[in-house]
Amino acid sequence: MSESTFMIPLWADLLAVGLGGVQGALFASGFTGRRLDFLGVAIIGLVMGMGGGIIRDLLLNAPLATLQNNWYLITAVAASLVGMLLAGIFQRLNRVIIALDAVVIGLFGAFGTSKALALGLPPVPAVFIGVCAAAGGGILRDVIMGLPVAIMHVGSLYAVAAAVGCAVLAMMGELGVPLTAAAATAVIVTTVIRLLAVIFDISLPEQRALHRRKVAVETAAIPTIKPDPPRRFRLRPPPRRP
Amino acid sequence: MSESTFMIPLWADLLAVGLGGVQGALFASGFTGRRLDFLGVAIIGLVMGMGGGIIRDLLLNAPLATLQNNWYLITAVAASLVGMLLAGIFQRLNRVIIALDAVVIGLFGAFGTSKALALGLPPVPAVFIGVCAAAGGGILRDVIMGLPVAIMHVGSLYAVAAAVGCAVLAMMGELGVPLTAAAATAVIVTTVIRLLAVIFDISLPEQRALHRRKVAVETAAIPTIKPDPPRRFRLRPPPRRP
Amino acid sequence: MSESTFMIPLWADLLAVGLGGVQGALFASGFTGRRLDFLGVAIIGLVMGMGGGIIRDLLLNAPLATLQNNWYLITAVAASLVGMLLAGIFQRLNRVIIALDAVVIGLFGAFGTSKALALGLPPVPAVFIGVCAAAGGGILRDVIMGLPVAIMHVGSLYAVAAAVGCAVLAMMGELGVPLTAAAATAVIVTTVIRLLAVIFDISLPEQRALHRRKVAVETAAIPTIKPDPPRRFRLRPPPRRP
Repeated sequence: MSESTFMIPLWADLLAVGLGGVQGALFASGFTGRRLDFLGVAIIGLVMGMGGGIIRDLLLNAPLATLQNNWYLITAVAASLVGMLLAGIFQRLNRVIIALDAVVIGLFGAFGTSKALALGLPPVPAVFIGVCAAAGGGILRDVIMGLPVAIMHVGSLYAVAAAVGCAVLAMMGELGVPLTAAAATAVIVTTVIRLLAVIFDISLPEQRALHRRKVAVETAAIPTIKPDPPRRFRLRPPPRRP
Repeated sequence: MSESTFMIPLWADLLAVGLGGVQGALFASGFTGRRLDFLGVAIIGLVMGMGGGIIRDLLLNAPLATLQNNWYLITAVAASLVGMLLAGIFQRLNRVIIALDAVVIGLFGAFGTSKALALGLPPVPAVFIGVCAAAGGGILRDVIMGLPVAIMHVGSLYAVAAAVGCAVLAMMGELGVPLTAAAATAVIVTTVIRLLAVIFDISLPEQRALHRRKVAVETAAIPTIKPDPPRRFRLRPPPRRP
Repeated sequence: MSESTFMIPLWADLLAVGLGGVQGALFASGFTGRRLDFLGVAIIGLVMGMGGGIIRDLLLNAPLATLQNNWYLITAVAASLVGMLLAGIFQRLNRVIIALDAVVIGLFGAFGTSKALALGLPPVPAVFIGVCAAAGGGILRDVIMGLPVAIMHVGSLYAVAAAVGCAVLAMMGELGVPLTAAAATAVIVTTVIRLLAVIFDISLPEQRALHRRKVAVETAAIPTIKPDPPRRFRLRPPPRRP
């Protein structure tokens, strides 16, 4: 695939980074018991806004795009501090943020996959890199917070939505569809899957073995298990138990 | 050292990745309380199968070998899902898996060290990279699970076995031994040390200071300490308390 | 900026790495309940001594300087084992270690920022990389220990001191000040800020929203929160409660 990469225009990329910063600040605001300071909030914002792009470029062994100009860092830090101060307002915009986030996952996934394809990677790794670009910020956030990685647990489809979109892009690329059309399709596919998953609370099944036989690994004996990490956001509150 | 690198043939590399995937799934099966979904199991499998190679290539600032063809990702994901479904059967093959894993540590260590030497690194960093290639998957697994890194704690020699093998390889390389012979020796050394450590329950001593004086760092005041992480697998059950 | 990089002489770099190793061992000695073995202590020492440099070079997509000769690894491992054995003595040198550490933050920050500028990065990312070089070891340490990252929480200025020093360096570079003078100024600025923050217990404010409205994200419902991570060291004991 020698075509040029599908480029997100800078303003869209910065919008995505800013959105990540705001989401990071809102995430941080749920941890009031942990005495995060301004720097902590800014780090979470940075990581959610820029982490996906950094992981993508590290895996591609390419110069880090988010460090090639001043605006990514400024946007992410400013957005996270604004998000911290105006947490109350942004909470009320929750639905808008989820919808925008779904588009952002799609954009980052499509950009990551097409960048990987442009650098000569085969389709499966290209899809993998797209998913890492889309979900990497959340993974890094959980790692630096000392939480288990959220996307590994039962919850609304997030990485899966990105994976399907990226796979569509890679397949259309193999079939010779022009890159722009393929990328646009991929973004739409990811966005729609993610939104449907949030609205209808669709999730992947929990791990299961074919035989119910009690698995007796020593690891099963660990007494204390940390609680499930929070899902990111939801459009509606969970149903009340009667 | 201008000789060519000691190459693992692709089938052996994929076997190792597949074994990592199965081990990841078995590890995940010990965490039934945490609601890992299929994707979570696949991520743990990916990380245990491919993590060592990814860390190795990141440290070498080289293109990631595991992303240059489709098969690594497919193998790791397929193995982890098969491992999840057939956890009961694989549990009974525990001894086989430990033995294979010991060979795999040796192979990854030898491959990592020889790749580092071929890229011009001095012997000590080359040994370090071999150990990271051998143990990196387990480290990454613990990090994304939010667990303390298992190899840092008292347990059967794992990283140490890899380190001794890699050091043997680097020394033989310095002495002019042909690479294939040196690598084969290294694999055998690592495998034997690891198996002996598991069978006879040999471990490194716990940290200790020369003077018993109570160390009064502020860090000592941390009240809640997470439980020790599980050792990977054992050949026999721990001795019963009478 | 086509000037040559501000180079730390090798002996100073190794001194810093060794100091990191000793600090890692002292940090580990606070976790006696966790059964860290010799390897675990050495890993923490390695990570605190070399982690900042590794993160810096990964972000710069440059060959890892700490792996280009044998001495970094040898120094870090030796220092951490000596630090473990002589923990009691080093505890009494606590003030000296804090002071040296403040200089080391300044050196690593200045080196990271000037390396980034020399590789053509704009000033804001260059400052970011300096901060990562200064604080990266502590971040990696917390991640592999499964602890929340310490610098994200309320405590004496650490990353902030590095950031101010790096920003001074970048600004002086823009103004055409010779690199050596700019770097020396940056090191002094960072050291002084860090020491003043420790002595007078200055910290960034905790996160806060403009409106006190109870933030009702689902994330707020997480029941178990890990305790605040320890601050690194302090010059004087905390005031006694009467």
